Amino acid sequence: MKITYKTHFARDIKAELNGYVVILAGWVHIKRDLGGKKFLILRDKTGTVQLILTKGKTPQHIIEIFNKLTRESVIKVKGVVKASAKAPRGVEIEPLEIEVLSLAKTPLPVDVTGKVHADIDTRLNNRVLDLRRKENQAIFRIQDTTLKAIREKLRELGFIEVLTPKIIASATEGGAQLFPVLYFGREAFLAQSPQLYKELLASAFERVFEIGPAFRAEESDTPYHLSEFISVDIEAAFMNYLDVMNVLEEVIYHVLMKIRKENMEDLKILKYEEHFPKMRRPIKKITYNEAINILQEHKYPIEKGEDLSTPALRKLGEILDEEFYFVIDWPTSTRPFYTMPKRDNEERTESFDFVYKWLEIASGSTRIHERSLLEKQLIRQGLDPKNFEYFLKWFNWGMPPHAGWGLGLSRLMLILTGAKNVREVVLFPRDKKRLIP
Amino acid sequence: MKITYKTHFARDIKAELNGYVVILAGWVHIKRDLGGKKFLILRDKTGTVQLILTKGKTPQHIIEIFNKLTRESVIKVKGVVKASAKAPRGVEIEPLEIEVLSLAKTPLPVDVTGKVHADIDTRLNNRVLDLRRKENQAIFRIQDTTLKAIREKLRELGFIEVLTPKIIASATEGGAQLFPVLYFGREAFLAQSPQLYKELLASAFERVFEIGPAFRAEESDTPYHLSEFISVDIEAAFMNYLDVMNVLEEVIYHVLMKIRKENMEDLKILKYEEHFPKMRRPIKKITYNEAINILQEHKYPIEKGEDLSTPALRKLGEILDEEFYFVIDWPTSTRPFYTMPKRDNEERTESFDFVYKWLEIASGSTRIHERSLLEKQLIRQGLDPKNFEYFLKWFNWGMPPHAGWGLGLSRLMLILTGAKNVREVVLFPRDKKRLIP
Repeated sequence: MKITYKTHFARDIKAELNGYVVILAGWVHIKRDLGGKKFLILRDKTGTVQLILTKGKTPQHIIEIFNKLTRESVIKVKGVVKASAKAPRGVEIEPLEIEVLSLAKTPLPVDVTGKVHADIDTRLNNRVLDLRRKENQAIFRIQDTTLKAIREKLRELGFIEVLTPKIIASATEGGAQLFPVLYFGREAFLAQSPQLYKELLASAFERVFEIGPAFRAEESDTPYHLSEFISVDIEAAFMNYLDVMNVLEEVIYHVLMKIRKENMEDLKILKYEEHFPKMRRPIKKITYNEAINILQEHKYPIEKGEDLSTPALRKLGEILDEEFYFVIDWPTSTRPFYTMPKRDNEERTESFDFVYKWLEIASGSTRIHERSLLEKQLIRQGLDPKNFEYFLKWFNWGMPPHAGWGLGLSRLMLILTGAKNVREVVLFPRDKKRLIP
Repeated sequence: MKITYKTHFARDIKAELNGYVVILAGWVHIKRDLGGKKFLILRDKTGTVQLILTKGKTPQHIIEIFNKLTRESVIKVKGVVKASAKAPRGVEIEPLEIEVLSLAKTPLPVDVTGKVHADIDTRLNNRVLDLRRKENQAIFRIQDTTLKAIREKLRELGFIEVLTPKIIASATEGGAQLFPVLYFGREAFLAQSPQLYKELLASAFERVFEIGPAFRAEESDTPYHLSEFISVDIEAAFMNYLDVMNVLEEVIYHVLMKIRKENMEDLKILKYEEHFPKMRRPIKKITYNEAINILQEHKYPIEKGEDLSTPALRKLGEILDEEFYFVIDWPTSTRPFYTMPKRDNEERTESFDFVYKWLEIASGSTRIHERSLLEKQLIRQGLDPKNFEYFLKWFNWGMPPHAGWGLGLSRLMLILTGAKNVREVVLFPRDKKRLIP
């Protein structure tokens, strides 16, 4: 598509274009003044290209513009492409005109070239510069591929994309961790998950997915929690937890394949191409009971009934020697009220966590589809069925057996990029301390 | 993919499968008891298929199950496929087993077969049933294609998908219509649009898009406004308003093509296939001044400086005889502070509305990329630049020229489905009165 400000991107400039006049626009990445020769590395979303200015050859007014340019200033350059063995990628541009579109102030609070390290708070406070670093460009290109690949595979498996409300009247999973909203004089809340809506939708469309924000007033300050996060959710009628684990395996496998295919350069920028996850299929499934037994056999101090903490999962992942695995059949007491108990043991549920090494990426279950059992489980968890009547009434009118999962996009992004903190893979993270930018 | 509850969908059952044993699962759509022969129309997400029970041939226990089944009950059926000239689509199923998965209560508050009309409030209150109606199945399949097609075209044009926060510290476009959120003891707000974030992201990734919720405390009760809606947003560095109008034309044209290709049956269900929008390209552009002149010439009472009301747009659409058109170069006073004034006339802006007949679907503009001009426009609109410092400071560090637009997904869905009220094309609409389900 022809646009006003440029004819080419930096990456399009190749030696084959030798002699052509092109128009580029982008940011001043680096300036080097060697006296007789001056170099300007111009950066745009595709990468960089070198401009060369030569004393006595380049018009004086262009040299004057070069002299006053600061790093991160935005320029439009009309110039002639020159093949040159000495230039990066064998090509450079001799400018005929430089137009300054936006002159950046100095000093810059964050170094975009990546030579000067800044802590994460400084970087987030100046995200406009930080996101221009090549590592961040790589991360969010990988996220783009991830989003595309998830939707692609789910559509192929017969799921349709849905969009559910984020302002809701009452809590989905008990009352904790809710953000209150003042809604036309009434109290409402931000949705913690699309759980109840997606169950309803499964009873109308059978297979649905949603990728959207979810909100939890998360008090804990960890590298894995934010108060606003993107949840990837599916729900499927006529599937049980084994079926939706297969869906999850298919989806993640497709994501890994697509990133390897489309983002290899980005993985190299992140120095992650050798550490990028490998999936052994089918993914290993171990029961919660087996997990506890294995840990106990290896002298790890844990009792049945306890949740699997991060250190416990680290140990388990090492022992299993698997990158990806499912821990299934969790105790009823550890799962939400809508989780289906197992037929042969009501203390265990048809549920799973999806783990990468030691990090929980997704969790899911068969859901209860019988109203009477749902009411029983609500009471068992100390919740009042009356408060859930708007939800329970749906079960009067033909709720099919169904199952689903929710996956935290930013946790998936950690394993796809090698980042250590979800704040690195979220454009504008939100936590107890951070609301800006 | 093999799943637990079924081997086939209703649509897969064809006369060619004559003699095969299949397993289906779905809802009891209609029951007809003609004494010697009993018919059950089973519905799933792909359509319907007929079961036939014959006295003296079908086992008695299956007939007993048939007798107690209510409409919208969920069943799993194992049966033999029979080609039959008399059956719908030339094929039916002779059941060998019927398992009742969920027995629906009677009476149903909404008729899923569509014979009994219900008002929109009744339908929304019982959305679990309402969404099973074939018209709603069609609408949300069309939405799925729409979402897919928008992303497809934008990626093709070099845009990457981004996800910006919905909890924000301060207003984007002045202080009106904000929903307050209690955020860890502080006051925060729900985002009215991703405007400022997408501008920042354009300065890092050049071309970005987002499809996500936006929130406005909309007091007006119209068929075109909701307090929570899905906004399709793009922002592009090194483009002006003419460039992003081209992007919009490409996107909408692609959506129309894809729906014609993939959803013709759905358009027929909605009886909309003949009324479905046709786009004449390039889309006509008229300036705001021309629009006022044309209306005045046709004796429509309007003065320069006034906004174009819905009746004014209706008149304009008729006169122009165009389905799609752009009204461009709006008065500065009618547009947000970040809108670029025209070079030759600061009372007019580089802005546009995208209109279908008389309905505004999208609006956009070239944005101001110079800090000093932004400050001037803030003051002009009675806003205090100090409150926007977190935004203004980005403009210190190389903000490129940029432009973008925002499109209301539900308004687009009106013109793609023929629905008259956005509440028909949103799964769970939110307005001043409605917060449930």
